[in-house]
Amino acid sequence: MNSHVIGIDVGGQTTKLGVVDARGTVLAQTVIRTDTYTDIEPYIAEVAEALNKIIKESGTEGNIKGIGVGAPNGNYYTGTIENAVNLSWGGTKTIKFAELLSEAMNGLPVALTNDANAAAVGEMTYGAARGMKNFIMITLGTGVGSGIVINGDVVYGHDGFAGELGHVAAVRNNGRTCNCGKTGCLETYASAIGMARTAREWLELSDEPSLLRSLDNITSKDVYEAAKDGDKLALRVFDFTGKMLGRSFADFIAFSAPEAIVLFGGLARAKEFLVGPIEEAMNANVLPLWKNKVKIVFSQLKESDAAILGASALAWEL
Amino acid sequence: MNSHVIGIDVGGQTTKLGVVDARGTVLAQTVIRTDTYTDIEPYIAEVAEALNKIIKESGTEGNIKGIGVGAPNGNYYTGTIENAVNLSWGGTKTIKFAELLSEAMNGLPVALTNDANAAAVGEMTYGAARGMKNFIMITLGTGVGSGIVINGDVVYGHDGFAGELGHVAAVRNNGRTCNCGKTGCLETYASAIGMARTAREWLELSDEPSLLRSLDNITSKDVYEAAKDGDKLALRVFDFTGKMLGRSFADFIAFSAPEAIVLFGGLARAKEFLVGPIEEAMNANVLPLWKNKVKIVFSQLKESDAAILGASALAWEL
Repeated sequence: MNSHVIGIDVGGQTTKLGVVDARGTVLAQTVIRTDTYTDIEPYIAEVAEALNKIIKESGTEGNIKGIGVGAPNGNYYTGTIENAVNLSWGGTKTIKFAELLSEAMNGLPVALTNDANAAAVGEMTYGAARGMKNFIMITLGTGVGSGIVINGDVVYGHDGFAGELGHVAAVRNNGRTCNCGKTGCLETYASAIGMARTAREWLELSDEPSLLRSLDNITSKDVYEAAKDGDKLALRVFDFTGKMLGRSFADFIAFSAPEAIVLFGGLARAKEFLVGPIEEAMNANVLPLWKNKVKIVFSQLKESDAAILGASALAWEL
Repeated sequence: MNSHVIGIDVGGQTTKLGVVDARGTVLAQTVIRTDTYTDIEPYIAEVAEALNKIIKESGTEGNIKGIGVGAPNGNYYTGTIENAVNLSWGGTKTIKFAELLSEAMNGLPVALTNDANAAAVGEMTYGAARGMKNFIMITLGTGVGSGIVINGDVVYGHDGFAGELGHVAAVRNNGRTCNCGKTGCLETYASAIGMARTAREWLELSDEPSLLRSLDNITSKDVYEAAKDGDKLALRVFDFTGKMLGRSFADFIAFSAPEAIVLFGGLARAKEFLVGPIEEAMNANVLPLWKNKVKIVFSQLKESDAAILGASALAWEL
């Protein structure tokens, strides 16, 4: 029948696994730890064991079409995970993830890509981008990721690594240092970590009163809570973060003329504070022909299911 | 037989027309004026007359598969030319170019796109990008245009206008004013006009001796000639122009991970002075995973045939 698919979201700490039907309902799901494994083989063995358990639980034995995996540094073309320094079994190695998992699952086909691309496919299949053929997915989490869809297909590029929009130049001179080794990357300003960094910088540079002053190690969540309480500095941090995003979005539009830019991830929950500044900066910096024409939309996937759904959607294309 | 195609390059001053075979040989060609017409109908009538003449001349009557047109502001989806203020019959109107031409040519199918997209298809079919499925074409002429190819297809985007990379932000603060109404666009620095502007600015800001000082209205060609004569200021103008291109290219790579960036147009002839600075800035600004991996290549199409070949290549896909 092949009426169901598996979605796996590989994160640095945990791995989420689920069985999904064609309507995007997660029939069964489970979570295992990623970070207790320093070798890939025992990790894959536990993934397979967990999968067989939820397949049985959901009564879908023999009806699985394939497995979709979203993982940091995942390469769609080769099915490998390369240089994933944030994964305990990753390091600087090239892990043949898709091949190993397929073997452990009796030859079920496995499609793998990075988490942002998986999120884009998920949103196109089940979420806010249903019916759209041209959009850009921006994931606002610890970092800033992206999945670009053109003519209904995710853009993988020549080498499988296309869509690293968190690392375009947001600031050309004296930009913040990025984990990637460059400076001024969009991610250093517009990720959850970047936003907290903005708040900490501004608190240090002025004596302006702020609810954030009493806190020890400010996170983006703290900034969000302070903004909800009307804190002026926190609100300006959101304005600035939105502006950095919006003016980069203007350049992205010049590239692929998308119908919409879809925002996903932890920071995207702060829609009320972000959407205004983003749209203002985007429309101020875009070519006149696109002014007020490109929609900013927010993910519609249920938070707890989103990662599994995104990855599982890949498997329908196998 | 349908063994031949027509290529038409619509420019502001002249329109070039040619009959092309499958190997990219221009069997017959001619040129008519664009700028003597303020209405589209008599212009189309002359295009049709000129086409019938070169079809007869090349002995290809009854063997024409279709017509490809490259034109400013050409929209592939609708076959129209919109807001082409540089065309005497264009203005702010929407011209149903493909439809009108097809009618005038007894129903031959017509595909139309902007000139940079046509150049990209031409380079992929006959030139430096043969065999490539992922590349970005940058045209360096009066302006900076672009044609983006992903998985072997030109990117048209949601509305048909994708690929306006001349208008990404090269400079965020105090950038030069662009014809598009924005400031700091790549085009204002890296087009032929932008490069001449750089030379004129620098001459005014210093007393440095330069061969360019004696000239009245400096063009990019003057800068090129001076650079060939070893003029230090002219050479630095090329370094700067190449740097502006290279650092923007780094962002383009983060988008679509191309195999190569192909340069085309008048300024691309100055390969010897541009390629070094472009590669240096590109590799200094790109994510480590792409460092020294993306090729900068120059158009291989014969200058006099390039515009016709580019447009004609579109017709093979009809």
